[in-house]
Amino acid sequence: MARPTPLSGFPEWLPDGRIVEQHVLDVLRRTFELHGFAGIETRAVEPLDQLLRKGETSKEVYVLRRLQEDPAEAQADKAGQLGLHFDLTVPFARYVLENAGHLAFPFRRYQIQKVWRGERPQDGRFREFVQADIDVVGAGDLPYHYEVELPLVMAEALTSLRSIGVPPVRVLVNNRKVAEGFYRGLGLADVEAVLRSIDKLDKVGADAVAELLVAEAGATPEQARACLDLAAISGADASVIDEVRALAVGHAVVSDLLEEGLAELGALIEAAAVRAPGVVVADLKIARGLDYYTGSVYETVLVGHEQLGSICSGGRYDTLATDGANTYPGVGLSIGVSRLVSRLLSAGLVRVSRKVPSAVLVAVTSEESRTRSDAVAGALRSRGIPVEVAPSAAKFGKQIRHADRRGIPFVWFVGEPDADGVVQADQVKDIRSGEQVAAEAGSWAPPAEDLWPTVLPATVPQA
Amino acid sequence: MARPTPLSGFPEWLPDGRIVEQHVLDVLRRTFELHGFAGIETRAVEPLDQLLRKGETSKEVYVLRRLQEDPAEAQADKAGQLGLHFDLTVPFARYVLENAGHLAFPFRRYQIQKVWRGERPQDGRFREFVQADIDVVGAGDLPYHYEVELPLVMAEALTSLRSIGVPPVRVLVNNRKVAEGFYRGLGLADVEAVLRSIDKLDKVGADAVAELLVAEAGATPEQARACLDLAAISGADASVIDEVRALAVGHAVVSDLLEEGLAELGALIEAAAVRAPGVVVADLKIARGLDYYTGSVYETVLVGHEQLGSICSGGRYDTLATDGANTYPGVGLSIGVSRLVSRLLSAGLVRVSRKVPSAVLVAVTSEESRTRSDAVAGALRSRGIPVEVAPSAAKFGKQIRHADRRGIPFVWFVGEPDADGVVQADQVKDIRSGEQVAAEAGSWAPPAEDLWPTVLPATVPQA
Repeated sequence: MARPTPLSGFPEWLPDGRIVEQHVLDVLRRTFELHGFAGIETRAVEPLDQLLRKGETSKEVYVLRRLQEDPAEAQADKAGQLGLHFDLTVPFARYVLENAGHLAFPFRRYQIQKVWRGERPQDGRFREFVQADIDVVGAGDLPYHYEVELPLVMAEALTSLRSIGVPPVRVLVNNRKVAEGFYRGLGLADVEAVLRSIDKLDKVGADAVAELLVAEAGATPEQARACLDLAAISGADASVIDEVRALAVGHAVVSDLLEEGLAELGALIEAAAVRAPGVVVADLKIARGLDYYTGSVYETVLVGHEQLGSICSGGRYDTLATDGANTYPGVGLSIGVSRLVSRLLSAGLVRVSRKVPSAVLVAVTSEESRTRSDAVAGALRSRGIPVEVAPSAAKFGKQIRHADRRGIPFVWFVGEPDADGVVQADQVKDIRSGEQVAAEAGSWAPPAEDLWPTVLPATVPQA
Repeated sequence: MARPTPLSGFPEWLPDGRIVEQHVLDVLRRTFELHGFAGIETRAVEPLDQLLRKGETSKEVYVLRRLQEDPAEAQADKAGQLGLHFDLTVPFARYVLENAGHLAFPFRRYQIQKVWRGERPQDGRFREFVQADIDVVGAGDLPYHYEVELPLVMAEALTSLRSIGVPPVRVLVNNRKVAEGFYRGLGLADVEAVLRSIDKLDKVGADAVAELLVAEAGATPEQARACLDLAAISGADASVIDEVRALAVGHAVVSDLLEEGLAELGALIEAAAVRAPGVVVADLKIARGLDYYTGSVYETVLVGHEQLGSICSGGRYDTLATDGANTYPGVGLSIGVSRLVSRLLSAGLVRVSRKVPSAVLVAVTSEESRTRSDAVAGALRSRGIPVEVAPSAAKFGKQIRHADRRGIPFVWFVGEPDADGVVQADQVKDIRSGEQVAAEAGSWAPPAEDLWPTVLPATVPQA
């Protein structure tokens, strides 16, 4: 077989890249568990009709068939068709309905899995990628305070990654009730059309959006101007709420829905200023997601890498799932782990201290005495030290080079009998400094920073 | 949407089952890393022609198509078709070829991922399941000692799981060179036909296999008898080697290939007797896998659950991968994690101390003072204690029941001002004993065994 080439859109990492990804996943998992989220996994497939309930995603789904399946039969059995999940929200909603009798509500869960989308791969978009989601779902109702809590958990998780070189994050928040309350108060009934227009602001600019609002949302030029004025408001403290209210008062459009939304957005900004200062920013031009979320909506950018797009998005659904009898409202966010890790690696933001777990390579003096090297390795491992044994009884210089190529910091030499038959003490050499000392496998340990591979910022992080 | 029902062959666990699975995965990962295996992940898909290089697996593959793909076009572009991987060996071989220039050989890697097979689900066989693989692959050559090392790493990993209730394991080993050397020495040239017949021993019995050997492998009744005599040999010490040699001498069939195989098998048994006493057993009737492995072959059963089949299998390939110029021999084993976890759960062998990560529920006295409860939770988390805050300011009795239903052992009450405005000390209650004490969020910690959910044997494990 000729040397294979990568498949576009299906990222894979070399072992050092995987150490970075694994570290990110470990930090996310630990943060989620510290906040009491239970981990679950769902199967990779869902019935196709469930995946297609939202028509807009229909282009992205990978459909499965068994190789030996009769195509005509498969065509007839549309209902039995399976597709790969394209996010973790659809499968989670199904899991909640399927297992509602076994879950305690509000149910807090995290879920870290791969998802697949058959779209054309481009700039940070993949066909296979890892998502890390947290959601809280209630039975019947779900208090607003979870809309404050969940983005702060994500901000904490991402901020924990600052130490390995992840840039600072900014969580941008908006609220469906504010947007809808404001637009309806202005007299604009087609809220979705307004949101679609506002969503194009970054791409086409204010003047073009004003024209769109007139042409497609039925706005007067004055209404369009008010919508753009709202979209221009952003800020990290409570004054942003006053600005929105002042703008609404100026147009005499303060509705109950707007007030409810402003109270929610204000509570989120206020709590965030205490718990994650400088991280959460109200941004009234955020429109993406507002068409299907019903309350708060979140996007997250890496400061200095804004063109990468949002690496963590989500919001509040009043109906995450429903089985007719019961409705389960939810709020959650999803981190695009592959997008984040891909940027960390491609932009050279992180480095790893070594490519293999082993802190020690135990040298082998001769194949006959390999079992003695194995015994040393076993003694070190039993005390939690990662070790491998040299592949062959080559000259010690070659064994040291073997360690050096992998970044293994220590080489262990098993003591041999001297001319008088007295077994010499074992020696361990730090191949970086060349320092070599006598050591016992039952008590020696490497410095803590050398025990496992570590992930570090490639440069000193910016303040 | 009506309440969904599970899909046969696609197992999912409730949160407590996932804690068991996650614990198993954590123990495997730690063991593999202590032995210096680097973790990698490969994409879920491979080109269909690569998946079908071994014809025998063709029935099991799930083929992907994009929902919006033109079926005629897809049919024409057979070469571009993708399928889900059915094991982790085929993708690993491709990864090695693709990245050979960036890897240091011998390359030790572990890989823990889901795989998919479109087969009819039955008794412990799934359509989607998790495998945990370790392999060592060399460039050009790979010393035999890795065939001794790798099953012992797996034995250590599985033995580490004894503490949570996994039954003892028995690793059954055989060697292609022993089997082939013996059969060829007897004058049986169609080694594959002999292996296929011997593989049916457990199902159809010795007499039927003797008939098969005559009918399908061209054996005389005496040759068939010798094959069955070989298959009857098993044992955990070096005497098993002598038995095989004595049987061969009796038929005057001691070839160099047989001697080479016996030396290898003997070395494995001898090392295993020291490093994992009682775990590894030579079993000369193992035939499955011998048709494609070229040296050692391994199967692993749970003692007392032998009818579940092998939960960890593998062997030595002389050609794991080749790109024409270079050949990469390998040896590895794969644990069927889902099969193992499914049995642990269905047979009630394990239990978990609680279903959620949280060790503490911080009660909320009133929604106005929720931020004070949040602050306590943050202080505890900053010291590594998993905590959640009560969903509502219900009566304390209800908040305690909320914790009880989840198995959260501690409820924290934030001190309130008394009649004189003096803020009382916080209190923490162990809801199992009812004991309640004053506590500070900056210093209190739960007992170590309550910090995280633990997985325990459901009954005292058998000796």
